Amino acid sequence: MSQIYERVALIGLGLIASSMFWAMRRSGAAGHVTGYARSSETRDTARRIGLCDTVCGSATDAVKGADLVVLAVPVGVMGAVAAEIGPHLKPGATLTDVGSVKTRVIEDVSPHVPDNVHFVPAHPIAGTEHSGPESGFATLFDNRWCLIVPPNDTDSDAVQRLERFWRSLGSHVDVMDPEHHDLVLSVTSHCPHLIAYTMVGVADDLRRVTDSEVIKYSAAGFRDFTRIAASDPTMWRDVFLSNKDATLEILGRFTEELFALQRAIRRGDGDFLYDYFTHTRAIRRGIIEAGQDTDAPNFGRSR
Amino acid sequence: MSQIYERVALIGLGLIASSMFWAMRRSGAAGHVTGYARSSETRDTARRIGLCDTVCGSATDAVKGADLVVLAVPVGVMGAVAAEIGPHLKPGATLTDVGSVKTRVIEDVSPHVPDNVHFVPAHPIAGTEHSGPESGFATLFDNRWCLIVPPNDTDSDAVQRLERFWRSLGSHVDVMDPEHHDLVLSVTSHCPHLIAYTMVGVADDLRRVTDSEVIKYSAAGFRDFTRIAASDPTMWRDVFLSNKDATLEILGRFTEELFALQRAIRRGDGDFLYDYFTHTRAIRRGIIEAGQDTDAPNFGRSR
Repeated sequence: MSQIYERVALIGLGLIASSMFWAMRRSGAAGHVTGYARSSETRDTARRIGLCDTVCGSATDAVKGADLVVLAVPVGVMGAVAAEIGPHLKPGATLTDVGSVKTRVIEDVSPHVPDNVHFVPAHPIAGTEHSGPESGFATLFDNRWCLIVPPNDTDSDAVQRLERFWRSLGSHVDVMDPEHHDLVLSVTSHCPHLIAYTMVGVADDLRRVTDSEVIKYSAAGFRDFTRIAASDPTMWRDVFLSNKDATLEILGRFTEELFALQRAIRRGDGDFLYDYFTHTRAIRRGIIEAGQDTDAPNFGRSR
Repeated sequence: MSQIYERVALIGLGLIASSMFWAMRRSGAAGHVTGYARSSETRDTARRIGLCDTVCGSATDAVKGADLVVLAVPVGVMGAVAAEIGPHLKPGATLTDVGSVKTRVIEDVSPHVPDNVHFVPAHPIAGTEHSGPESGFATLFDNRWCLIVPPNDTDSDAVQRLERFWRSLGSHVDVMDPEHHDLVLSVTSHCPHLIAYTMVGVADDLRRVTDSEVIKYSAAGFRDFTRIAASDPTMWRDVFLSNKDATLEILGRFTEELFALQRAIRRGDGDFLYDYFTHTRAIRRGIIEAGQDTDAPNFGRSR
């Protein structure tokens, strides 16, 4: 595949940025990739494992001359990083991000983007429970969706080029408006994470059931929750604080439904429960048919 | 491995019973295995795929002469099945079950067990989201725990023999009292299932987000919930109705915790969220170290 951006800068070197690097390496989408992470330990690790062609000592150094700059930091610090690098961006460059929340990131970043730079927010919907510079791998985005969320006045050539870039990393691409993005992701990602964290917290906190019992008998369903609840705490703190309205809206709907099921259990209404549980199977079938998960039992876990 | 029971009868031929059959076939724990399922379609399938040495036309036929009879039906019908087969059980035989709830099953089944039969309730903590006679496989119980939950006056030789049997199928074995079992499983299994069903129900029901959006963007966490929420509706309806008290207790704790997190989001209390999310990682580590799950990202899903 041909080169899409001559120079790419990755700001933040966690799971997503490191996976982007290996995917760019695989596709040849970038000529030269610079990288920067705030922690010197992360920068040392990156140098050791060959993550990025050049690991820079500052964000401003990393973005110098870059045709594409990727903000891959927790959404709570996107604005501060944009303020720092804004004056150093190359005229004509594209600035993008990979944040899980879009409205807030656009609000925070836009004021710092020079007129001659294209800001094209994006969100690759892919991840694992692991984090850090060593957690990335080239196939993370394969067959997953990347949502491009451009503000109204965004240059269409810049948008199309970024779409081409994400396709070259293995993704499908859709365009969505920021408010709708934040609602959809609240359903498919943010609230499931919060709920998983909560259930694991309950298990950990319950004096009448020991942690060792929870651990030994987790195969009955709970272990799937613990995988989600092992995700990066900083990233998720920022997601919930930045997508407050949609999160609270969906949590409200969730507790309403949970109370309905709880009431059915208390009243012994088996038909209500049976109908509810039958209905949810259809969504699973849809996900498997759309190639977004495996039908192998227990995800085909190796034993 | 040597034979543990000469004749075993499986009543109900779903995921657990069919996996037990293939595991017995692997270990040689049983001389001859009979099976019965209420639906003639299931019996036909069993005959076609060689599930059981003999598939019988009635439960009473299946249990005749059996040294071990396994009730592998939804917990809501255990009592009725026990009433039907009770008079036909061989003197000295062991009757066991594989239900996910124990207090209620013991209450329902015990009255129908003849004096000369040993009732030793058990619960293999293993499963997948698939159900039916074709979903079983020999390795389902390998390295998983089976809880033996014997009433106080149970013959200890019968208990030890059943423990040996479950070990021969690949399980570790623990003994636990029924009330504690029901509370522990409420945490590790029943409530996680109810919560997953609820979240999938919310997603399906939300008019502002389409099912196709939920399906396409599920990789962000939601798809793990849909796996759990694809489990057998009849089984789960019966579990919640039969383990009402523990379920409602744990759900109460869960909503309390959820409200605390919701309040922290509303108030913008990032420290509370960060501490909470950091804490839950430890449980995940414990599960992986105990060999109860894989550390491979996304469970090592094949793409």
